[in-house]
Amino acid sequence: MAARISSLDVLDVRFPTSRSLDGSDAMNLDPDYSAAYVVLRTDDGSRLEGHGLTFTIGRGTEVVVAAIHALAPIVVGRQTDEVFGDIGAFWRDLVGDSQLRWIGPEKGAVHLATAAIVNATWDLWAKREGKPLWKLLVDMPSEEIVRAIDFRYLTDALTPNDALEMLGRLEATRAAREEEIARDGYPAYTTSVGWLGYSDEKIRRLSGEALADGWTRFKMKVGRDIGDDLRRARIVREAIGPDNLLMMDANQTWDVATAISWMEPLAEFEPYWIEEPTSPDDILGHAAIARAVHPIRVATGEHVQNRVMFKQFLAAGAMDICQVDACRLGGVNEALAVLLLASRFGVPVCPHAGGVGLCELVQHLSIFDYIGVSGDLDGRMIEYVDHLHEHFLDPVVIRDGRYQVPTRPGYSAEMRPESLARYRFPDGAEWRSNSVDGAGGASPTVNAAGNEAAPRLS
Amino acid sequence: MAARISSLDVLDVRFPTSRSLDGSDAMNLDPDYSAAYVVLRTDDGSRLEGHGLTFTIGRGTEVVVAAIHALAPIVVGRQTDEVFGDIGAFWRDLVGDSQLRWIGPEKGAVHLATAAIVNATWDLWAKREGKPLWKLLVDMPSEEIVRAIDFRYLTDALTPNDALEMLGRLEATRAAREEEIARDGYPAYTTSVGWLGYSDEKIRRLSGEALADGWTRFKMKVGRDIGDDLRRARIVREAIGPDNLLMMDANQTWDVATAISWMEPLAEFEPYWIEEPTSPDDILGHAAIARAVHPIRVATGEHVQNRVMFKQFLAAGAMDICQVDACRLGGVNEALAVLLLASRFGVPVCPHAGGVGLCELVQHLSIFDYIGVSGDLDGRMIEYVDHLHEHFLDPVVIRDGRYQVPTRPGYSAEMRPESLARYRFPDGAEWRSNSVDGAGGASPTVNAAGNEAAPRLS
Repeated sequence: MAARISSLDVLDVRFPTSRSLDGSDAMNLDPDYSAAYVVLRTDDGSRLEGHGLTFTIGRGTEVVVAAIHALAPIVVGRQTDEVFGDIGAFWRDLVGDSQLRWIGPEKGAVHLATAAIVNATWDLWAKREGKPLWKLLVDMPSEEIVRAIDFRYLTDALTPNDALEMLGRLEATRAAREEEIARDGYPAYTTSVGWLGYSDEKIRRLSGEALADGWTRFKMKVGRDIGDDLRRARIVREAIGPDNLLMMDANQTWDVATAISWMEPLAEFEPYWIEEPTSPDDILGHAAIARAVHPIRVATGEHVQNRVMFKQFLAAGAMDICQVDACRLGGVNEALAVLLLASRFGVPVCPHAGGVGLCELVQHLSIFDYIGVSGDLDGRMIEYVDHLHEHFLDPVVIRDGRYQVPTRPGYSAEMRPESLARYRFPDGAEWRSNSVDGAGGASPTVNAAGNEAAPRLS
Repeated sequence: MAARISSLDVLDVRFPTSRSLDGSDAMNLDPDYSAAYVVLRTDDGSRLEGHGLTFTIGRGTEVVVAAIHALAPIVVGRQTDEVFGDIGAFWRDLVGDSQLRWIGPEKGAVHLATAAIVNATWDLWAKREGKPLWKLLVDMPSEEIVRAIDFRYLTDALTPNDALEMLGRLEATRAAREEEIARDGYPAYTTSVGWLGYSDEKIRRLSGEALADGWTRFKMKVGRDIGDDLRRARIVREAIGPDNLLMMDANQTWDVATAISWMEPLAEFEPYWIEEPTSPDDILGHAAIARAVHPIRVATGEHVQNRVMFKQFLAAGAMDICQVDACRLGGVNEALAVLLLASRFGVPVCPHAGGVGLCELVQHLSIFDYIGVSGDLDGRMIEYVDHLHEHFLDPVVIRDGRYQVPTRPGYSAEMRPESLARYRFPDGAEWRSNSVDGAGGASPTVNAAGNEAAPRLS
């Protein structure tokens, strides 16, 4: 008998990070980094499990968990060969449920739920093939990559034939790039020096330390007070020197006109990009800002809900930097669509990461992007935040400001069993022994690396 | 002591409409018309209750219920005077929760949940004032209307001062329009003649019957097969004559190029609008379609997630008809923002209705739109579907193809207690006696009016 997906378990995992914050960004005050976490099991006797998550920040994780339960009947009982044989059809079944799509479609809680399930499915597949996810993708025929993608609503910008042609052009040189990236790693930037709550002294010290650790690309938060932003930008720029990259992140805090006027004096510090200057839904607003703040680039993506929105951001010149998110989009399938769209519009992909598990996930996407889609590292880099990696079985490895290529089979999102048990909400030991209201207990900060960078949304 | 909101109860109410369908639209195959339904109570001794709902179509309602539970702590315990004294601040508190916003923001399940709560709050307020919701709005000073609206992310298109000025221009003539609309009712159109599953004979007969009932505006479904669409469009156009309006609805089924080519031959039947030709997220796609199919108008809105999206649709010329939805948007506050935006861009508002409770709700919005915002009936009409109205205490009244103005205090969304008890999912009598899998039991159709129009998404 053919093997089937025999169970889908869902966990609500929350880290009480809100109590350890000594600052915040302009929009997100008190995140409890969390995950709606899926475990798939099969009856093939292999004991392989597919682990996948979607990132959340505390309250509301239980809503995503409810959405995963609602999607589970579409998954459980499926033959694994059928799923892996046509993962595109599997994806379309998840997003196309004729009743569930009303509460999206392809956005909000139900799409975050789709991400957790889809990521777990690809993890299972990669483990079965004995490859890290990026390598599974690299070894896949271009036709199969294309079949994994839902081109519905994309064909005015990208057709399956376009995609095949794009992938085909890079096939002959894949091996050389794979070798290069395995040797050198993938460029990264750090989001640990300039949180809004930090003192000037701390910003100066952290910038210097990161520089000494080999970082050459730095991101700071802006948007609460222009005087503070100018003073802090000067400190960071002085600390990192004129040639290193300085990015700024406003976390959606401005209206269009405010974004434009706010960035005028900050231009002195030559920011490489301004991130999330306004509502993540405001494509035309981003386009207006991009025209006005040029040559500062506009970056966005962590809250861009699906491939249809990315298509428009790219087509409208509203996104100079494409910050694909492994969990906001509906998992690997849709991320592949966005990698191809970005390449088609000549826009570099610099994934959103941080939170919990995002660094682990997006490294696979960027590595495949380089080897199979863009063929280019110019202007590409993955966000890095040094936080919560200790909870993963296959945590990211950073060396000299670069992600080292993961080699363990799967999608790197599997948490340690003891972490899952301890941080399970509300019944894990971490929550039972503290407040269980979801607003964060009086818990110690969870940061094995011992650095001073408190967790922040990036 | 000041009165407070003392409780928020949530019900999952589902009508097993999927079993009674003899056809469907191009996207939604088997809706079980449902609602996540909120009841607010206070401790003021008045026994007044605020009832509000958001419309869903079966599976997934439980996800919205979970989101309402997540929002409830923001509501329960609040002083009613504080809530009604600054309903704009109340709204911003609901959409601005620093953790919950991650699973939106302002979209998907959590925004549908916001709608149910906000609608219940306005219902409570209107009942306390002893007025139907539209009249509460009409009697409100313009400054208070403006204070109810969240202008965040709108100010490049509409500022509070713009809104004040727009409302002010119509103040002197409000009374005359109120008198007129109370006498004549508000224009409507019917979505009952052209569901995809109907036979040619049935379409012909229903069109003739609706005409005899006084209807002059008709909507048919299209998008599954161009040959069928052409044949059916001819039947309807012949039945209703050349001067009545014929609208077409594709329910998101096409990509951009397909929408344009599909509408070319259908232009012969002079459709007044084509509704939801493609993804509700594809603003630029709608704009391209609108340019290509002109003079056929492009209508959309029932799946447009928030005011930021409406702003862009309107600014981009992507929405010739604004189909505001009382439950997809975050309730009355955000609907007011969209009425003002539409007026600013000179686009007529023709609300989405049908489902369960949507007709009851949107009539209030359109009546206020006419009296206070647009001052114009030209090209305006409210959708009407004759279904499930018997479950409401204050159901809509249609006469000669026009909505009659509601006079009972509140927002007309309160269901009969016996309906709530019977259709509560999964423990109501209707579900206990049938299948309880959420996919619809073998239940009799729920249609007190006894007409043949099976429930469909409109």
